[in-house]
Amino acid sequence: MPMSYGFQSRLFPILKEITAHYKTPFHIYDEAGIRETGDRLKSVFSEISGFREYFAVKALPNPRILEIMKTMGFGFDCSSVPELMLSRRIGAGGEELMFTSNNTSRDEFLFAASDGGGILNLDDITLISKVPKLPELICFRYNPGPRRTGNDIIGNPSEAKYGVSHDQIVEAYRKVRDLGVRRFGLHTMLASNERNHSYMVQTAQMILELAEHIGRQLNIRFEFVNIGGGLGIPYKPEDKPLDLETMAKAITQCFREFESKNDYAPKLYMESGRYMTGPHGVLVTTAINRKDIYRSYIGVDACMSSLMRPGMYGAYHHISVLDKEEQPKNTVADVVGSLCENNDKFAIQRELPAIADGDILIIHDTGAHGHAMGFNYNGKLRPKELLLRTDGSVELIRREETPEDYFATLNFARDMMKQNRKG
Amino acid sequence: MPMSYGFQSRLFPILKEITAHYKTPFHIYDEAGIRETGDRLKSVFSEISGFREYFAVKALPNPRILEIMKTMGFGFDCSSVPELMLSRRIGAGGEELMFTSNNTSRDEFLFAASDGGGILNLDDITLISKVPKLPELICFRYNPGPRRTGNDIIGNPSEAKYGVSHDQIVEAYRKVRDLGVRRFGLHTMLASNERNHSYMVQTAQMILELAEHIGRQLNIRFEFVNIGGGLGIPYKPEDKPLDLETMAKAITQCFREFESKNDYAPKLYMESGRYMTGPHGVLVTTAINRKDIYRSYIGVDACMSSLMRPGMYGAYHHISVLDKEEQPKNTVADVVGSLCENNDKFAIQRELPAIADGDILIIHDTGAHGHAMGFNYNGKLRPKELLLRTDGSVELIRREETPEDYFATLNFARDMMKQNRKG
Repeated sequence: MPMSYGFQSRLFPILKEITAHYKTPFHIYDEAGIRETGDRLKSVFSEISGFREYFAVKALPNPRILEIMKTMGFGFDCSSVPELMLSRRIGAGGEELMFTSNNTSRDEFLFAASDGGGILNLDDITLISKVPKLPELICFRYNPGPRRTGNDIIGNPSEAKYGVSHDQIVEAYRKVRDLGVRRFGLHTMLASNERNHSYMVQTAQMILELAEHIGRQLNIRFEFVNIGGGLGIPYKPEDKPLDLETMAKAITQCFREFESKNDYAPKLYMESGRYMTGPHGVLVTTAINRKDIYRSYIGVDACMSSLMRPGMYGAYHHISVLDKEEQPKNTVADVVGSLCENNDKFAIQRELPAIADGDILIIHDTGAHGHAMGFNYNGKLRPKELLLRTDGSVELIRREETPEDYFATLNFARDMMKQNRKG
Repeated sequence: MPMSYGFQSRLFPILKEITAHYKTPFHIYDEAGIRETGDRLKSVFSEISGFREYFAVKALPNPRILEIMKTMGFGFDCSSVPELMLSRRIGAGGEELMFTSNNTSRDEFLFAASDGGGILNLDDITLISKVPKLPELICFRYNPGPRRTGNDIIGNPSEAKYGVSHDQIVEAYRKVRDLGVRRFGLHTMLASNERNHSYMVQTAQMILELAEHIGRQLNIRFEFVNIGGGLGIPYKPEDKPLDLETMAKAITQCFREFESKNDYAPKLYMESGRYMTGPHGVLVTTAINRKDIYRSYIGVDACMSSLMRPGMYGAYHHISVLDKEEQPKNTVADVVGSLCENNDKFAIQRELPAIADGDILIIHDTGAHGHAMGFNYNGKLRPKELLLRTDGSVELIRREETPEDYFATLNFARDMMKQNRKG
């Protein structure tokens, strides 16, 4: 947000104990903060009957986090087989799972349908004939194309690989209806890290109008509309947070109007990732080197393998230094990892308090798309994950990678193919 | 370059057999091409006594590839513990290893010094007192700062986290000399994917002048200078390749002039990665879906987890369609993977022959920074690697990842830390 006052007050007093016990670097997630955000999301949409959040697993694919989501009654938005496996592993199944894939293979469809299945969200009209067996409930992902301009991150819908186009959408539902499908959902996903609530309200309005249009054309009703994710968080201290309450109020009004015109209202589904967990995680790392050449550099024991966003996108992540919060920020430095890549920097020319080797740095807002995006480039290993539980205890919820993990795919049975032909 | 005529003529006739046997997606590397490039590199620098290539392991960290490098007499440029482990695993050791790390920890220095050690290339003057035990041979990485403008990819040296600054460089060697170091090397690395040979010649000239300057100041001789990597490859068909011969001739002349002035010449070391293997690898993937919405999309069975460069940097990788090389390119499409990220595209609005499900696509120039940069975002798994050997046989040299690999770090002993204090 950066991290909330609550998270800081829960974490900072015990952080030295934690680093002594677990050793840096690690991501640590705040159960209390996650629950607060989840409860708030349910609360603001409480007037829409059947509201459900499907947590976007890709943001933080850790089973202990998914368990927390499940206790809040959330479902899971999955778009790969391992994400489905993870969600099923913690006991989620059936319509708690939404399979929002794209460019899907037959094997993936088969896996999604196995073990009680899940809600199938089809990304293209041609997939109707490719799904091994059409389930009774079908959802399509809608892409409005030039009817909407994209938000900053997700870009222009006309250039997005996702979804069924406007000209195809009625036909898509007609086809599945004629093939015997009896339950219907409608999905779209147009924003990423959007802090302007109006954009989300417009999306809800758009999808409801479309549901009405398709419904009348085909004489069908929609059990739910899913407006996707994309609720933004403020990474910089000066960023204005999303006005969740105003957004929910306006979206609720859209649903009331739909109901008064159509004598029913679909349920509202969302698939938040970043908003649910982003601010409730931090990357904790120790300063290990300082160098002063043409610029000053603070070297830490984490690198891009733990968090790609600053290096890849130039994204801002706020940084605190433990026990130096009140000190003047009289150092300007790049905070860097050890990867052999010059963009392996967590901060560029950042104002920070004076930092000595051994100081603990807290890199904010790594609860979503942090660990999940990590890579092993340059032989760098991914760090552990911890959970700060509501009772104040701390739990290891993922171990760090070891060289053995890095070498795992070098263990295999010899498989040679001799060439018989002559050159 | 895209891939050479030789590679195509070796691969394409047997590619269907290979895909039938191993299944797509996979990277396949061309041993003959790698050896040709290696031999050419040695040949153009044959007049510089003691020339040695230290292959940049991060480009293609596969032990079978490293074995090929070793048979050519190459050393290994490592910048992490797993890269040192990989190189030692295939029998390389001592001065065949160059440890060019940055923001290095004490544990990494200890590992680098173990088991016969390697050439230590120090990234900062402060590290002199942090190296657990100074070896007899020390190299420093030099950063010229504003004295050089960076190339397109590596950026401005003044903003790079690497190296010892101009003002510190003489002092750095004085310090280690006074501490008993008797053998010296000098290193710099200023380019990435540079196809203008003059830039590399200027780097050689710069480093030799600096060696002369430091040598006179401190009355020391340099055993070697290392001009780093950065030799570029032409990704687009219309790109002009680097003129290796002209570059080598000019660099050789610099060494001759140094020798005539100083009565000795250092050896020349380089650390090529992309140039050695980039064009000698391709990603082979099968078309599995086609969709036509506001644009046309060819969906393939590989995604960003196999190759990040197009999605992350918008990098161009040439694409061939097996058995359709001669057909008119009358399709314009984005070639996309299945990752839930809109930049998961191998090509944007590319002219291609008409493609049907089941067609084999060959994505060129993935031999360097391809598999190595792959990640598991969205639960996507990394593909296998194959080697097309000089005898025409094909060998599995890395298996594909499985969900078990993806879940490996979820297996650990319970580790809870109870909080004793009261809130």
